[in-house]
Amino acid sequence: MTHRSTSVFLRAGLTRKILRAGWGLGLALLAGCAAPHDPNAVGGASTNAANPASPNANGVAHGVANAGAGANAAAAELRGTGDLGVAIERTTGAIQIIDTTHHQRLAVVKGLGDLSHASVVYSRDERYAYVFGRDGGLTRVDLLSARITHRIVQAGNSIGGAVSQDGRVVAAQNYEPGGIRLFDAQTLEPLADIAAIGPDGQRSKVVGLADLPGHKLAAALFDAGQIWIIDIADPRHPRITRLDAGRQPYDALVTPDGRWYLAGLFGEDGMALVDLWQTPLTVRKILSDYGRGRERLPVYKMPHLRGWAVAQDQVWLPAVGHHEVLVADKAHDWQQAGRVALLGQPIFAIARPDGRQVWVNFAFPDNGKVQVIDTAQRKVIKTLAPCRGVLHMEFTPKADQVWLSCRDDNRMEVWDTQKLERIATLPINNPSGIFFTARAQRFGM
Amino acid sequence: MTHRSTSVFLRAGLTRKILRAGWGLGLALLAGCAAPHDPNAVGGASTNAANPASPNANGVAHGVANAGAGANAAAAELRGTGDLGVAIERTTGAIQIIDTTHHQRLAVVKGLGDLSHASVVYSRDERYAYVFGRDGGLTRVDLLSARITHRIVQAGNSIGGAVSQDGRVVAAQNYEPGGIRLFDAQTLEPLADIAAIGPDGQRSKVVGLADLPGHKLAAALFDAGQIWIIDIADPRHPRITRLDAGRQPYDALVTPDGRWYLAGLFGEDGMALVDLWQTPLTVRKILSDYGRGRERLPVYKMPHLRGWAVAQDQVWLPAVGHHEVLVADKAHDWQQAGRVALLGQPIFAIARPDGRQVWVNFAFPDNGKVQVIDTAQRKVIKTLAPCRGVLHMEFTPKADQVWLSCRDDNRMEVWDTQKLERIATLPINNPSGIFFTARAQRFGM
Repeated sequence: MTHRSTSVFLRAGLTRKILRAGWGLGLALLAGCAAPHDPNAVGGASTNAANPASPNANGVAHGVANAGAGANAAAAELRGTGDLGVAIERTTGAIQIIDTTHHQRLAVVKGLGDLSHASVVYSRDERYAYVFGRDGGLTRVDLLSARITHRIVQAGNSIGGAVSQDGRVVAAQNYEPGGIRLFDAQTLEPLADIAAIGPDGQRSKVVGLADLPGHKLAAALFDAGQIWIIDIADPRHPRITRLDAGRQPYDALVTPDGRWYLAGLFGEDGMALVDLWQTPLTVRKILSDYGRGRERLPVYKMPHLRGWAVAQDQVWLPAVGHHEVLVADKAHDWQQAGRVALLGQPIFAIARPDGRQVWVNFAFPDNGKVQVIDTAQRKVIKTLAPCRGVLHMEFTPKADQVWLSCRDDNRMEVWDTQKLERIATLPINNPSGIFFTARAQRFGM
Repeated sequence: MTHRSTSVFLRAGLTRKILRAGWGLGLALLAGCAAPHDPNAVGGASTNAANPASPNANGVAHGVANAGAGANAAAAELRGTGDLGVAIERTTGAIQIIDTTHHQRLAVVKGLGDLSHASVVYSRDERYAYVFGRDGGLTRVDLLSARITHRIVQAGNSIGGAVSQDGRVVAAQNYEPGGIRLFDAQTLEPLADIAAIGPDGQRSKVVGLADLPGHKLAAALFDAGQIWIIDIADPRHPRITRLDAGRQPYDALVTPDGRWYLAGLFGEDGMALVDLWQTPLTVRKILSDYGRGRERLPVYKMPHLRGWAVAQDQVWLPAVGHHEVLVADKAHDWQQAGRVALLGQPIFAIARPDGRQVWVNFAFPDNGKVQVIDTAQRKVIKTLAPCRGVLHMEFTPKADQVWLSCRDDNRMEVWDTQKLERIATLPINNPSGIFFTARAQRFGM
């Protein structure tokens, strides 16, 4: 079942103007704009490196800021981008550009709007970060010059995005109005607007957006209870396959090989699974008795799903409304292979990239704790209390470090994943998500 | 069984001198040296971009060369390094720096010695390439300024290397004299020399070197028939665990998760497998009847193994002396799950990163052909005849492109892996290996 989108198509020549587009939403395309100039700013990324991590730092100094549009980008130094990342300051509309080799903050870039639930994806060359804000803002930041190159407000409420397999398209998934919008990855020129209209004719929130092999995207429609597989080989004319998924998919992941798309269901027990190698595509329900016969606790915060949940052949999933993670065994027809009891309601369950550990953080009131699971023994081997308000965790691609964001202590912590010891602390104002550039090389990240 | 190396340890202060070290081999540490200046060179990587791929090019123009030591590195432009790569010119001692986004040659760097069987690994920031030459040369090249930053001749004959999990150590595996040498990844200062002495007291060629999680390396000793797991957490004092592996391991791979180390055996049928999660470590023989009862053909060229062989839960292995690839099923206790007949003796069997295809090239006289296997159907779906002397293949990390080196036609070809169509051609003199920077983010690559 495919469908030609009735999108509004806009030409590149219209960029740099305020556009009033046909889907009832003002679209401000501010190509080349930059954050307000800060007279105290240190110019360029190169000189900002003189702001090393302070092991006992608390609170944040904002003397480091992006250079603004007037700065000379050539002042930034040549550097590789494979060890860079972005950390979100959720209350200031700013991001930090960080270096995982030296555990350093390189620069702060301001002017990104409401970042209270922001996420980031990367260009295929790992130079540009695409930052999705709660206010519908989509900002393209040059990590090398520490400047905003393009910024648009493309929806009323956005929760994330994806970059296509070939790197040419950046896609935004939106809550309000519900849908997916496609943009040219270099210019943020709009390419297509895919309204998330369910079988009942109503708009739906979109969750779980992931890029797939074969120039496709996958997404889940919370209100409509559907999974959509979207062919964007021609990004101005996306073709949609709609599948019924179950009640209220709240988030989803694709396995790192791009084959299996798995959506968590909030409105019922179990998860919806699509084998993307199958023709025709169908949805299959797995883990459908995971909460059966047991009362679900009040859910303070929804867990997140992403390809990081895969360790070896097993997928580690935070159980909604239960103090546990579930293990689904990909190698054995996706049967439930086990469950591990935890101290609280899990939010993120993230596998160390070698799959030997899964790290879990928690909803309030347990959000000062992190539990480390040994996946071979399937048990918690360590409970850490690193700081207050652990909102996110990000592993370096070769698994030696994990970075934690400590919202209520205004810092990030870097941990050695083998010794389970803290090795560095960096100041940052109310941090939330941390995103490393290695995500550019992976499906669904 | 561990062992403290009797290495010669050298201090950083001794760099820039010719050192005569204690292992009977002259070590020329030429920190900061560069290739001979070419008066026709185009200065800096930035301006070299004006040398786009020519779809019908044949033969090679060498007007593009590295800028040499005298050039101003600041003239190079800021750019991300996630979409870069290196291609070897096997007869000229030069490498090309290539860009997979624009299918462009950015620069040529000369002066790397004998590159007739060269290979490349990358720094964790994806800025520097470490090139291992057949003459024992180890050259560190800055991809951004297109300059050699350091070059040493560290052995008589080297066939490859690895970068440690944390990026701090670069290791070389040597045929002559057989052993592994560790160097500081920034300065190429020697850290340790691990002589590959077998149970009989003889030196052995070293093959299959791979970096592992937990600050370890793995390698196989061809003559000694052993696998060594080497803890390099303290790289000046490596600790070795020695395991008997079988007769003549010729190459090896570690799975992308860093858990399974698998060595191919030339002296007997089958392969040697180590589960690196097990304590104590042991070797197990798998696929031990793969050639049983069938005569082995003369072997013109040894196949290569590496983590690229893993597609989904299955490992696709070129069979030595047979016209087929074998499939070992990791999810089912490493049993042989199938074999696929091919047109000739396979050299590389490389999985597209999403695992849906495996591409195979061949030994002489079939080295003008490439076969594409669909892994779901386990059959050849296409036989390509792209050019003469296909020596190597490299996929972009998100699987949309594969680059082929065509030695006897003096070109590289870029293919669309979905349409199975050629999309670009680049001139290069007798190319062999092609290596993309995304390898920096993976174990064993």
